Amino acid sequence: MASLPPALERLIALFSRLPGIGRKSATRIALRLIDSSEAECREFARAIVDARERTKSCSICGGLTEDDPCSICTDARRDASLVCVVERGSDIFALERTGRFRGRYHVLGGLLSPLDGVGPEDLRLNALLDRARGSGLSEIILALNPTAEGEATSLYVAKLLTPAGVRVTKLASGLPVGGDLELADELTLGTALEERREL
Amino acid sequence: MASLPPALERLIALFSRLPGIGRKSATRIALRLIDSSEAECREFARAIVDARERTKSCSICGGLTEDDPCSICTDARRDASLVCVVERGSDIFALERTGRFRGRYHVLGGLLSPLDGVGPEDLRLNALLDRARGSGLSEIILALNPTAEGEATSLYVAKLLTPAGVRVTKLASGLPVGGDLELADELTLGTALEERREL
Repeated sequence: MASLPPALERLIALFSRLPGIGRKSATRIALRLIDSSEAECREFARAIVDARERTKSCSICGGLTEDDPCSICTDARRDASLVCVVERGSDIFALERTGRFRGRYHVLGGLLSPLDGVGPEDLRLNALLDRARGSGLSEIILALNPTAEGEATSLYVAKLLTPAGVRVTKLASGLPVGGDLELADELTLGTALEERREL
Repeated sequence: MASLPPALERLIALFSRLPGIGRKSATRIALRLIDSSEAECREFARAIVDARERTKSCSICGGLTEDDPCSICTDARRDASLVCVVERGSDIFALERTGRFRGRYHVLGGLLSPLDGVGPEDLRLNALLDRARGSGLSEIILALNPTAEGEATSLYVAKLLTPAGVRVTKLASGLPVGGDLELADELTLGTALEERREL
């Protein structure tokens, strides 16, 4: 049985190592890549190195940025009294796309996961506490994934922030807008029922 | 609304340009990439350029290879009288994984698609005709996708090969092995019925 050429196989192996990318997707991406011209492949290679070198973490919020502090942390038109806590830097852009939040962010850098060896010391919690203790914070919104780990982390963070005396909220769980009640899983529908609101 | 850092945005744009990779997948891949160390990103960049530079088309079958002719075309243990025609070089590895074919291959390099401007002159048809006219070929198996374009191309190739007097077959269409009859689409089930075989 003939196998893939070694250099191509190596590229596929590298892509497969990225979390969330399986062997099939890795093969598709690698084949598409080498279907491009040599100049395009060089451009790609350069873009990867560039993106890695230029993208840093903001020293305030921990978000992805080329300038430190980032444009959100330095934007005086944004509400500095409102901080939204997210797991990863990329979550910021998901929230920004909603166009419904005008405060600032704080990236935790992960979720508590004892089984994977991720404890409180691995998250940017001290920096969050410092921000909460500073003056002028009116609310901290926890925007973590509605999973077991996300909920556990939210509870932990809320408890941690209690002494700081700041209001802590979390994103609503419920039916996805435009979704179908019949297709919702029991947990989602149950939560939507429990957390129903007045009209 | 804050947007992604420019170098990261550029990397995402490059990935989105690859056929079959949408904006969401491109973003996921780019974020995973820059989550790696600088050394890993350099390794990636190098691997892309390497794979592109080292991987060539075999001058006989058109398959992906680092040595020309490829290991399949030069393998004396393989049946040189049997040629399997595929659309792309990567299809060869899908067939190889079955472990059920011991002949050789011929890559067409595409499928006829008048709407996309792909005509017979864009495919490796002359090379196939030359191989068919050469001595010792007992059968040509067309292994193109069972789509409208694949079927049209198969018919065209079969007609083209008629004067060469070689036997031309194509892969069976029918129910996927391990699949569920109830879940099969009407076309597949209809074809399976029409092309039923004696037990």
